[in-house]
Amino acid sequence: MLNFSFENQTRIHFGEGQISAITNEIPRDAKVLVVYGGGSIKNNGVYDQVISALKDHTWFEFSGIEPNPLYDTLMKAQALIKEHDIDYLLAVGGGSVVDGSKFIAAAALYAGDDPWDIVAKQQKVESALPIGVVLTLPATGSETNIGAVVTRDGNKLPFMSSAVRPQFAVLDPAVTLSLSERQISNGVVDAFIHTMEQYLTYSVNAKVQDRFAEGLLQTLIEEGPKALLAESKDDLEVRGNIMWSATMALNGLIGAGVPQDWSTHMIGHELTGTYGIDHARTLSIVLPAVMKVRQQDKHEKLLQYAQRVWHISEGNEEQQIVQAIQLTENFFQSMGMPIRLSDVKLGESDVDVLLEKLELHGMVALGEKQQVTLPVSRQILTTAL
Amino acid sequence: MLNFSFENQTRIHFGEGQISAITNEIPRDAKVLVVYGGGSIKNNGVYDQVISALKDHTWFEFSGIEPNPLYDTLMKAQALIKEHDIDYLLAVGGGSVVDGSKFIAAAALYAGDDPWDIVAKQQKVESALPIGVVLTLPATGSETNIGAVVTRDGNKLPFMSSAVRPQFAVLDPAVTLSLSERQISNGVVDAFIHTMEQYLTYSVNAKVQDRFAEGLLQTLIEEGPKALLAESKDDLEVRGNIMWSATMALNGLIGAGVPQDWSTHMIGHELTGTYGIDHARTLSIVLPAVMKVRQQDKHEKLLQYAQRVWHISEGNEEQQIVQAIQLTENFFQSMGMPIRLSDVKLGESDVDVLLEKLELHGMVALGEKQQVTLPVSRQILTTAL
Repeated sequence: MLNFSFENQTRIHFGEGQISAITNEIPRDAKVLVVYGGGSIKNNGVYDQVISALKDHTWFEFSGIEPNPLYDTLMKAQALIKEHDIDYLLAVGGGSVVDGSKFIAAAALYAGDDPWDIVAKQQKVESALPIGVVLTLPATGSETNIGAVVTRDGNKLPFMSSAVRPQFAVLDPAVTLSLSERQISNGVVDAFIHTMEQYLTYSVNAKVQDRFAEGLLQTLIEEGPKALLAESKDDLEVRGNIMWSATMALNGLIGAGVPQDWSTHMIGHELTGTYGIDHARTLSIVLPAVMKVRQQDKHEKLLQYAQRVWHISEGNEEQQIVQAIQLTENFFQSMGMPIRLSDVKLGESDVDVLLEKLELHGMVALGEKQQVTLPVSRQILTTAL
Repeated sequence: MLNFSFENQTRIHFGEGQISAITNEIPRDAKVLVVYGGGSIKNNGVYDQVISALKDHTWFEFSGIEPNPLYDTLMKAQALIKEHDIDYLLAVGGGSVVDGSKFIAAAALYAGDDPWDIVAKQQKVESALPIGVVLTLPATGSETNIGAVVTRDGNKLPFMSSAVRPQFAVLDPAVTLSLSERQISNGVVDAFIHTMEQYLTYSVNAKVQDRFAEGLLQTLIEEGPKALLAESKDDLEVRGNIMWSATMALNGLIGAGVPQDWSTHMIGHELTGTYGIDHARTLSIVLPAVMKVRQQDKHEKLLQYAQRVWHISEGNEEQQIVQAIQLTENFFQSMGMPIRLSDVKLGESDVDVLLEKLELHGMVALGEKQQVTLPVSRQILTTAL
């Protein structure tokens, strides 16, 4: 395995009824800004639970964070923070609300002129307001990690800083029961692909990390479809297993000491930035094509994936790999996801647009060995047509 | 899965050459006490690396921590701490040195009259000196967790406090190359049994935790024997996989949200306290007997263990379980461990002595459902004869 440093200081409170834990997690004298999205938390009881837990705190609220949170929206929170001297953010929502809160927290204490530089120029974030999270949509892992993605003018760009790692995260599987099928599908597939991007590279004989990743993949394959079926969709054990998988998929643990390949995400970001396609639905389109185009480079891990995750033993190595890619596509489709650009009504002319965006954003050497150059990205997108 | 809260704030620096990381981990103005054991670190280069990393720090040293660290030894450090106004402990060693340092750290700031009350009366530890760790023997997981075990007058007793969780831990697999075969065997089997005690209970459908535990067990089964073979014992990848498995086995992660059964450890502690048998060698004797005596209670997880960890598919369920227990014993023996009381020259008369010790220490209702009463412990020890 490769040398690594790892830490994850976020405290987790997992299970039904755990929202009440925020009472003791947030200092009693804090001035709290509750940050949320479109208001669904007011219909599913989450808002009421949060307010009840904060009844002895001073708090304000900022809503309207959209999926793929927009810079302009997030900057509107700054006036509120100054006006009320806010010193704690409580993000109540999914990955977009958490990511948005991270940017708000960093921008509030940013010493430079323009907070957009945090993503556009990758300016280092030295400090940020403390953040707590009540997660409502298991998917991105943002609730315990240091990353966030922000969008402006069709540019969807990431930043990372340990200053924005949440202090605590409440994971109550019961709050996910009110999610739509599409949200569940997106979440399961997003977590699956986060795992794949830290796993499907080349072997460095990191047996623990490999087996942890395989365990997450198997769990998501088993539990994901159950969360869509009438007879099991309200099963809290299923929801709990999905929720914990999604957090573990991107808390840094399975990626510590192994090579990583985030090319699927980077290409996917251009699909979202340009055409507004749901994040996870861009990934389910791009990953199968990455597996096919880079089959030689990833041969060893693809074979391990076929044998350990899908328990394929028939056929020669290449046949096993082809079968595993097919089963991956079947899994995505069983979750109601698109697996081709044509599934989202895009075609050859769009490939050129996407290539230009990749070039514009400097995404010219992606992947575990920086081998995904623009021509390789073109091949991937063409394979995904 | 069960509700849980989880945190682990220890920063990990993993890999060859990482001892140098302590330079920046310990505040430059700290007065550091370097705590170690019998001096093996002076022969294998670890001491020199530590000293080199601390060349701009003020530091003192306290050596002589024995395996199963003794209260009287640990209390000797207190005078040194007062004399030099020590405010940071650096534990350099295996689980005993780390556990001993945790007790030293807690005793230094203990507000009560007698620090022995921390273990004897389970007095709450509210604060402790900060601790850093350079781990030399992968086994106990103490380097990132909140537990420690201390021995006095043949009584080996645990305490837990988040105040003693190390701030950081350096895990350099290269420093384990100088360990004896016995130390390696003990470490691998200790980590294996830590995992089993959080896994082999009853199912709460915690798929992630189960698969992570199975991944650790499989890794230890694969890598443990290689660390003893002439052709692979110096393989740093093998050592690295063992080291990371041992840390992950008891950092709280696989035990979060699942029932636990620490009866093997509690019975084993009496064997060490009374007869001075190596900790891990008590576990390899007790665990197989626990598996046999509690086969009905643990049927479901024993079967899962047989099928997923040992890939057993032939025979009926009971036959698969019996085979898995046999393979577990074979694994312990391949690691050079005893699996019966007779292997360490103990017999029926000793069972009475051990039962008295268990009663004395209040160990009268052990296990995941408190069903391991003294008669059941007798049955376990008799089965282990």
